[in-house]
Amino acid sequence: MKMSQSFVKTLRSAPKDETARSAQYLVRAGYIYKELAGVYDYLPLGLRVLEKIKNIVRDELNKIGCQEVQLSALQNPKLWEKTSRWDDQSVDIWFKTKLSTGGELGLAPTHEEPITNLMKTYLESYKDLPVYVYQFQTKFRNELRAKSGILRGREFLMKDLYSFSPDESTHQKFYHEVEQAYARIFKRVGLGAETFETFASGGIFSKYSHEYQTFLPVGEDTVYYNKDKSVVLNKEVLTDEVLSDLGVKREDLENTTAAEVANIFTLKYKYSEPLGLEFTSKSGERKTVYMGCYGIGISRVMGVIAEKFADEKGLVWPESVAPFKFYLIGIGEQGTKKAEEIYEKNPDLFLFDDRDARVGEKMADSELIGVSFRVVVSDKTLAEDSVELTERKNSEKKLLKIDEFLAKL
Amino acid sequence: MKMSQSFVKTLRSAPKDETARSAQYLVRAGYIYKELAGVYDYLPLGLRVLEKIKNIVRDELNKIGCQEVQLSALQNPKLWEKTSRWDDQSVDIWFKTKLSTGGELGLAPTHEEPITNLMKTYLESYKDLPVYVYQFQTKFRNELRAKSGILRGREFLMKDLYSFSPDESTHQKFYHEVEQAYARIFKRVGLGAETFETFASGGIFSKYSHEYQTFLPVGEDTVYYNKDKSVVLNKEVLTDEVLSDLGVKREDLENTTAAEVANIFTLKYKYSEPLGLEFTSKSGERKTVYMGCYGIGISRVMGVIAEKFADEKGLVWPESVAPFKFYLIGIGEQGTKKAEEIYEKNPDLFLFDDRDARVGEKMADSELIGVSFRVVVSDKTLAEDSVELTERKNSEKKLLKIDEFLAKL
Repeated sequence: MKMSQSFVKTLRSAPKDETARSAQYLVRAGYIYKELAGVYDYLPLGLRVLEKIKNIVRDELNKIGCQEVQLSALQNPKLWEKTSRWDDQSVDIWFKTKLSTGGELGLAPTHEEPITNLMKTYLESYKDLPVYVYQFQTKFRNELRAKSGILRGREFLMKDLYSFSPDESTHQKFYHEVEQAYARIFKRVGLGAETFETFASGGIFSKYSHEYQTFLPVGEDTVYYNKDKSVVLNKEVLTDEVLSDLGVKREDLENTTAAEVANIFTLKYKYSEPLGLEFTSKSGERKTVYMGCYGIGISRVMGVIAEKFADEKGLVWPESVAPFKFYLIGIGEQGTKKAEEIYEKNPDLFLFDDRDARVGEKMADSELIGVSFRVVVSDKTLAEDSVELTERKNSEKKLLKIDEFLAKL
Repeated sequence: MKMSQSFVKTLRSAPKDETARSAQYLVRAGYIYKELAGVYDYLPLGLRVLEKIKNIVRDELNKIGCQEVQLSALQNPKLWEKTSRWDDQSVDIWFKTKLSTGGELGLAPTHEEPITNLMKTYLESYKDLPVYVYQFQTKFRNELRAKSGILRGREFLMKDLYSFSPDESTHQKFYHEVEQAYARIFKRVGLGAETFETFASGGIFSKYSHEYQTFLPVGEDTVYYNKDKSVVLNKEVLTDEVLSDLGVKREDLENTTAAEVANIFTLKYKYSEPLGLEFTSKSGERKTVYMGCYGIGISRVMGVIAEKFADEKGLVWPESVAPFKFYLIGIGEQGTKKAEEIYEKNPDLFLFDDRDARVGEKMADSELIGVSFRVVVSDKTLAEDSVELTERKNSEKKLLKIDEFLAKL
């Protein structure tokens, strides 16, 4: 992408009510635009990051046999009444609206009810099970407080996966596969070292659920962990009973703030029973489908990555999710000409700063935008047939022969 | 994709209130699932078709210098009040909702207001113009009548593009480029021969706008056209003045029903003026940005393609948007084994019907689902080292040597 052709510009300041560092940088660097508290637009760079995260998630889920769909945002109250989740007393974050032909509709805050109901059309026998279905879909939640940019939104992108199993043991096997897939996903997006599977409340149907918590100063959750982090638990389950279950002592635990980037949840029959999702077993009995759900907050993951790695100069994206691999700057007439040549060979790898701007401004913007490597071509580097490569995350510079650089692309 | 692993099954019947043939087939063949009138889920096959249409549109828009973003669904009334489009009297298809912290929000039926307002942050001088920005985004419209499946939805996918130009001549040049891009798009998705640029009302700011109408028996619009279809006009502009403008006589026109799949619209200052989108001209004056907007109903295009080409056996997708290129069936032990081998080499090209089902059922489903070619491998074809290839659209069969077939993939 040529920056001269992008309509987005880096900004000197972010909206005054934007307190999280990630949100300030994401706005200033031109990844997102704030419509309302908790409601953001994604600009070209931001959309590229979201797509890269989605593709990593999609790849790992497809590998374990999941199938992608896209469910509607508009929701039929009848389905949610069956599970007692339509009432604003039980679910207090509904956005509701009215049909012009009469009656209310909701905007999906999650999709257990419609996916469970949909499955009734397709699941008949034990031969149809297990199945695993996921989507990337916008969720709407009428949060009282929406702060921290895209870390907690009223409108946000989520990946939600639902599993339908004939019995608990089949469910447990898949649950474990998702745990492994999630570990691979967080490793690939760059959060692996700081994201921990965390014991959390299982609600009324399961003793525990698992959250994936990324340790983060601005995180909204508090988690307790032992030294090697082999046990991490959410503050909400810090009871003597749970400590005994997990075989850890309170005095061996430290605590920190963290952001929940994902969760996995054994639902058992919580939705399948009231919605009547059954199958015929091998012996001919009618049985209720055993369910699980597995979320990843895609836009929140983007916010957490931004927050986690940013430094005093700006954003620092892991290469796997960076909108571009290289930020390209040509200095002087020869340098600019050579930069143009390099760009044209692989336009999709480079954010080419071909703007009519001072070199200092370009350098500063390369750091604000936080693409993985900066490539500078100047008379000085050309004198050695080289480009100067600077890694964003550690500022390490090296000269690399142009041919060698091009061969590596 | 292996059909044995898909959770979706073809259905014997469609919902009783589904009257359009395309909707009946799309539901029965497992492309979509009806949540509510005008509100559909996209199942794996349907999502693949949508993505293929999106990728064709994206490719053609990127070629003419457009930049992709994604704007929010939730809308701030303040912006829409400035253009007098918040009031339900002036825009009667709003879905509105309430923030838990007080105040109303809308669900975007279109995005002129937010994109125009967003541009105020980035557009400063004539040097920043022109720019072209588009998105694929869900639109919400509180239609009184939502019928014909995905031909007219309450929640549907649209591509909307907005142009920002310094003056009318720059705008006209781009408007013409979009006309050419749209012609290429409709050709590529298979609707080129039956989709016509149509004169329509320009509203209060322009004399005409252009619609793209696909001639279709169940279309909701009526269009008039001369014999060679070099002039097509919407019934709404069939006046003596317009006929004289276009140089055609009423008696030389025939009429037909059609479905509007796209439109392009010169907005002039309709939104930029009330929202205050200005730039500094070369001579230092402040001027208002000259705008245009250009829509394509992505999910409607899918519905129109389904409706247009379906026959008495089911759907008939053009190859460019078919969810898969081949529907693969193995008959008998050897045929099934060979089919499996063929599938494994290119799993993304084949919908492999490896179900434990009768051959007749597989044949019928291949026609209902409407993938471009059916490939049958049986003892009979293997005796000639061949597969039998049947083109869905004309039922033409031929035997093709397996090596030759594989080489062509």
